Amino acid sequence: MTSVEKIQNLITQFIESQDFMGVPSELYAPIDYTMRQKGKRMRPTLCLLSCEMFGGDINECLTPAVAAEIFHNFTLIHDDIMDEAPLRRGLETVYHKWNSNIALLSGDTMLIKAFQYALKTDKAYSQAILAELCKVALEVCEGQQHDLNFETRDDVTLDEYIEMIRLKTAVLLGSVLKIGAIVAGADDKNMKAVYDFGIDLGIAFQLQDDLFDCYGDVKVFGKMPGGDIADNKKTYLYLKALELASADDKKRLEGYFSMPKGRDEKKQQAVLDIFAKYNVREIVNGVMTDYYENSLKHLEKIDVPEEKKVVLRNYADYLYNRIK
Amino acid sequence: MTSVEKIQNLITQFIESQDFMGVPSELYAPIDYTMRQKGKRMRPTLCLLSCEMFGGDINECLTPAVAAEIFHNFTLIHDDIMDEAPLRRGLETVYHKWNSNIALLSGDTMLIKAFQYALKTDKAYSQAILAELCKVALEVCEGQQHDLNFETRDDVTLDEYIEMIRLKTAVLLGSVLKIGAIVAGADDKNMKAVYDFGIDLGIAFQLQDDLFDCYGDVKVFGKMPGGDIADNKKTYLYLKALELASADDKKRLEGYFSMPKGRDEKKQQAVLDIFAKYNVREIVNGVMTDYYENSLKHLEKIDVPEEKKVVLRNYADYLYNRIK
Repeated sequence: MTSVEKIQNLITQFIESQDFMGVPSELYAPIDYTMRQKGKRMRPTLCLLSCEMFGGDINECLTPAVAAEIFHNFTLIHDDIMDEAPLRRGLETVYHKWNSNIALLSGDTMLIKAFQYALKTDKAYSQAILAELCKVALEVCEGQQHDLNFETRDDVTLDEYIEMIRLKTAVLLGSVLKIGAIVAGADDKNMKAVYDFGIDLGIAFQLQDDLFDCYGDVKVFGKMPGGDIADNKKTYLYLKALELASADDKKRLEGYFSMPKGRDEKKQQAVLDIFAKYNVREIVNGVMTDYYENSLKHLEKIDVPEEKKVVLRNYADYLYNRIK
Repeated sequence: MTSVEKIQNLITQFIESQDFMGVPSELYAPIDYTMRQKGKRMRPTLCLLSCEMFGGDINECLTPAVAAEIFHNFTLIHDDIMDEAPLRRGLETVYHKWNSNIALLSGDTMLIKAFQYALKTDKAYSQAILAELCKVALEVCEGQQHDLNFETRDDVTLDEYIEMIRLKTAVLLGSVLKIGAIVAGADDKNMKAVYDFGIDLGIAFQLQDDLFDCYGDVKVFGKMPGGDIADNKKTYLYLKALELASADDKKRLEGYFSMPKGRDEKKQQAVLDIFAKYNVREIVNGVMTDYYENSLKHLEKIDVPEEKKVVLRNYADYLYNRIK
């Protein structure tokens, strides 16, 4: 069986072998810039791990796996326009390094490139892969629109928040796992189980990201914690605190989240104090762990020999225990 | 043989039968708004006319034809963000009616929907259709980026302008004709001929659009002529005038096109006077006619009985003689 490291090397080598440049260079340089950045490449990794677990040929799965990575990077480029974000992964965003028109158009180009890569597969399953990519791409857009809507809403529920991160983050993890299963020729029951595994893992992953944003160590995490608080982002932490807080604390919290966006030491400390008062960190950590454990239950249901599941389970465990 | 009117009715009925709404409504209402507008629907019309000319079943071709229409409308929505355009087809643009974030994200959603529609075809040719759609979609983005680049360049050549409109406008006409041919099972030679027909027709169509923008009758055209001059757009007319003008007139023309964007009666008249002095209108009309006649030569080369070509030739003739 191939180790995670080998799979990640295979993905890195494949991406590095690709030529993302073209004419006019203004359109393609941002794509090359984005795709050369070293991220976790979690989506193609999950895709290949799933394919291998089901006994498929991971080399057959490389183009749709990389399609998902290109798609994910497209969403980041367009999200950064909407958020007017100057930095991502410690580097300038395309929006900031070039401009919003170039970020818009090179993002569009990446979305098309994602479909082009997904198409480079055997005719036997290219239609199924494309259908899955279309479905998940629409869902991710829906999630982003919910996220935008939340900014101006003051009645967001915890369930709505989970549904938003399911769409914005989790479905893509589910889909890449499913695509790996499609290439390997897995049956419908196994395909559903690995998809559900990805959904719960993805929700856990996003809740963990929210926790990192609030409590992450700047030395390890690479960025100052408190970004979501500064942006008045209605995360699970905030919504849970609102639910539990006394009328007075609720009013104070809502007041802080009505302030203009931007970092403010006093605000951040006050919000963290309210979170602490109601044990929000521990509660969200518990919810996150529940989702993670649920994801493993879906993995259990998959009908392949136990030893085939080891690498994927280890990778999920690595994500769960990651520190950034 | 089916008349153009019947084909257009079929397309209209099909589009009207589609449900473009979804959740969240902010994402889908702009798509519904855009797709319900009555345009020429030239791209699906050409697609079905090509399919029928090659003896294909036009009903089989409806979803990819409408995919091309959705794709075209996606490009308009994103172009309108970049141009900060308040109006299109006499109606508010999505960018202006909602906002730029919603236009960005609902545009992305339309691009994905276009692929989803194109996928709803027989397995025998869905991969070929998707590959064609990916190829042409990238080219259209390249054309738009060239167009953006031209705004700040002062050395654009006539050849570069033709290449820009080939990418931005003509290739999509070529591709929809080719997709009709793919569905009908035409051979490679016929497919190439019908594609080339679309390219030259598309270039003629865009040059005609440039002429309308300059000399169109407001009562017929529905909008005040002079928009391109107001926007300092380096059209074929402008570039041809620069080529022919005396050093003095060239300097004046460049001066006018360095003014801030916006309508200016005096500027418009002065530019039109320079165009008139060098017979630019007649020259561009001649170039347009050359492209149109070339397109018909490609149509001649297509190896189907003459009577099969009548409807498509009549439609090209209608486009050539259109008044808006």
